[in-house]
Amino acid sequence: MSKKSISGFPELLPADRAVEARVEDRLRATFELHGFAGIQTRSVEPLSALEKKGETSKEVYVLQRLQAARGGTPVALRSDTLGLHFDLTVPLARYVLAHSNDLTFPFRRYQIQKVWRGERPQEGRFREFTQADIDIVGQGDLGLHHEIEAAEVMLDALAALGFGPVLMEINNRKLLQGIASQVGVDRFEDVLRALDKIDKIGSTGVREELSAGGVDAERANALLSAAQITAESGQELRDAITGLNLPGAAGPLLLEGLDELAQVLDALIAFAPGQVRASLRISRGLDYYTGTVYETVVPGHERFGSICSGGRYDQLVADGRRVFPGVGLSIGVTRLVALLLSEGMLEGGSPSPALVFIAVTSEDERDRSVAVARSLRARGIPCEVSPNARKFGQQIRLAEKRGIRYVWFPGEADTQSVKDIVSGEQVEADPHTWTPDR
Amino acid sequence: MSKKSISGFPELLPADRAVEARVEDRLRATFELHGFAGIQTRSVEPLSALEKKGETSKEVYVLQRLQAARGGTPVALRSDTLGLHFDLTVPLARYVLAHSNDLTFPFRRYQIQKVWRGERPQEGRFREFTQADIDIVGQGDLGLHHEIEAAEVMLDALAALGFGPVLMEINNRKLLQGIASQVGVDRFEDVLRALDKIDKIGSTGVREELSAGGVDAERANALLSAAQITAESGQELRDAITGLNLPGAAGPLLLEGLDELAQVLDALIAFAPGQVRASLRISRGLDYYTGTVYETVVPGHERFGSICSGGRYDQLVADGRRVFPGVGLSIGVTRLVALLLSEGMLEGGSPSPALVFIAVTSEDERDRSVAVARSLRARGIPCEVSPNARKFGQQIRLAEKRGIRYVWFPGEADTQSVKDIVSGEQVEADPHTWTPDR
Repeated sequence: MSKKSISGFPELLPADRAVEARVEDRLRATFELHGFAGIQTRSVEPLSALEKKGETSKEVYVLQRLQAARGGTPVALRSDTLGLHFDLTVPLARYVLAHSNDLTFPFRRYQIQKVWRGERPQEGRFREFTQADIDIVGQGDLGLHHEIEAAEVMLDALAALGFGPVLMEINNRKLLQGIASQVGVDRFEDVLRALDKIDKIGSTGVREELSAGGVDAERANALLSAAQITAESGQELRDAITGLNLPGAAGPLLLEGLDELAQVLDALIAFAPGQVRASLRISRGLDYYTGTVYETVVPGHERFGSICSGGRYDQLVADGRRVFPGVGLSIGVTRLVALLLSEGMLEGGSPSPALVFIAVTSEDERDRSVAVARSLRARGIPCEVSPNARKFGQQIRLAEKRGIRYVWFPGEADTQSVKDIVSGEQVEADPHTWTPDR
Repeated sequence: MSKKSISGFPELLPADRAVEARVEDRLRATFELHGFAGIQTRSVEPLSALEKKGETSKEVYVLQRLQAARGGTPVALRSDTLGLHFDLTVPLARYVLAHSNDLTFPFRRYQIQKVWRGERPQEGRFREFTQADIDIVGQGDLGLHHEIEAAEVMLDALAALGFGPVLMEINNRKLLQGIASQVGVDRFEDVLRALDKIDKIGSTGVREELSAGGVDAERANALLSAAQITAESGQELRDAITGLNLPGAAGPLLLEGLDELAQVLDALIAFAPGQVRASLRISRGLDYYTGTVYETVVPGHERFGSICSGGRYDQLVADGRRVFPGVGLSIGVTRLVALLLSEGMLEGGSPSPALVFIAVTSEDERDRSVAVARSLRARGIPCEVSPNARKFGQQIRLAEKRGIRYVWFPGEADTQSVKDIVSGEQVEADPHTWTPDR
């Protein structure tokens, strides 16, 4: 059997998986504190659903039953061919439409689940990873206050991970489109596509890309000046927009976007001072967003990229008859944990969840050790009975290798003791009453 | 976007998913109490690993990148073509070999993860489902006491789900092979294959199948008499084997298997009286087991089939140089939860994890409701702020539809109150001190 790892499909050792599981638990606990219900969607969607989203559709893994593949017939790609989902938003949209009669709106759901992208291996990206998403999906309408709330939930969730402050940068698609329109650039998609690359290719690159798309230098400069705006209050934002001295009068879309962004910004700054700012270069590329958009960086670790992104979408969930506007944010858990672990920014994990290792005096007396374990477990103390009855020194070394702090020596009924192998302290102990330091 | 469900890919509504998540949590808590470390393996394995296991290899989903599929080239099946794993045992075997230098043995791991099988849809089977596995894998050797321990962990785990007693039926491959050998049947695989179908095709069917394989009537009858043995103590088991009056003398394999089964049986019956018996018809088909094998039924609900199965394997994890014997059991979580839910055997779930719904008096006063929510959450009480400021009657109805028991009315600073919408009782309450009944 090949032992080789497969590029892009990461796997953790038990101690690191314990850290990742703790991260997932804390995210989940925060989401539930905020009244979000957890769901799991199937891992597959028909190609017709996966291909709706432009560029990402190239990265889908399609499935074929082995027997069919053995026949050597090419996969006949049809709209109902199954592919693995590449995010949790497309499945959510389908889930909401399929179950709308059984859900109550606004539907508040979180989802912590694996996704797959058939990236080219040489890009060094993950091809299987876990995302943690929250979304609030309304029926017909959805108040702006949910755009504030969703960000607060994620700020709470990231704070619960304990790795330090973050910087959430927000923008508003209406404001961005309003500016483009006032500047006189009609092809808003080109603007989004160009701005999305600003961190990679810089202002010069964006200017070139806009120019290639037929935007003249003056207009490109106006757009780039706007994109450089950051603000830490609604008033500062309004002043900066005024300071752009854009030609002509601001249109209703610009004014609506500005009002929304100013309102969301002031609320979030009050909630998490120093951790939120408006940044007009945040565009989120070609995604389906229509209002607030969010990205989040770890100050001092900008190379992580955005660890929590999302936005408001008005048209993603719709079936021609009804529309379900939503707002959602997503954390790339696998990547975030890998980065935080590599930087030592998360408390370490142990290879074993056991707190106590019960030594075995001899195989004939194993039952006495098992009885101690049952007493401890009945009081919620995780433990493991030694797999062997070797010399105590060897048993203690196994406990150490497993990262188990306490070793219990069953002795006779009135001579039981437990040793803290960190401090070296050994005390008499009763399995019905002794409690470990956690 | 198609709303249709896809046969074999089940999806739960939030209230049922809450039940399934609770089941997963309780399994996990039990496994960790017993010192099992949680891991996740990648979802894919190369075909070379997936095809080792005989029959199941037919049911694999292989992956193809969409771009390649678009080219219309047939999937060229190679040994490194990726397929979705169909169980958690093949990945464990590979994980242990790949990481043996970084693990401590016996390696105790649990794994709660999705698996996929490309079953034919008309069979009505799940094609995507969650399994919960525990395994103990030794290096070189693994004591018999782990065959007792692994079963105890699963009996504890199933008890923690609270749906009532189970019946675990155990057998031992050495005993079965020893009997076949003493009876004079050499092709043990045929015996396993035939016995595995006994619940479906009955004794007559098994006799026919053995006969087709060249086993004469006398030998088939001897095997079937043995397969009908059940015993509730080691002594009863020994007496029943003696009572078979098999021709000639018992070989060493039979005696070893009998000793092991008697010992495991007595220990497990002492642990869970009335919930364990030896049953010599349990064969586990063509799986890789070499010692104790386990199946578990819910008395009165035998149509569920086995809800928890597994066994001891000596050769599954090996790389030519080293061998890692193991023992493991597996619960099919998706199927078990679906069955228990359909029979009303699990406590129901709520569509929302929130315990408190905070009413909003008017949009201008939303901040006061948000402040109440923060106080409650700071004390670990999950809650949701009303999405709107409609009449209180309408807000209460939304809380009801979401299954949220308490509605909080923020009122003025000294007039806040909370209503239990189950009992109808409404009391004054302070968000910093009030505590819900859970």
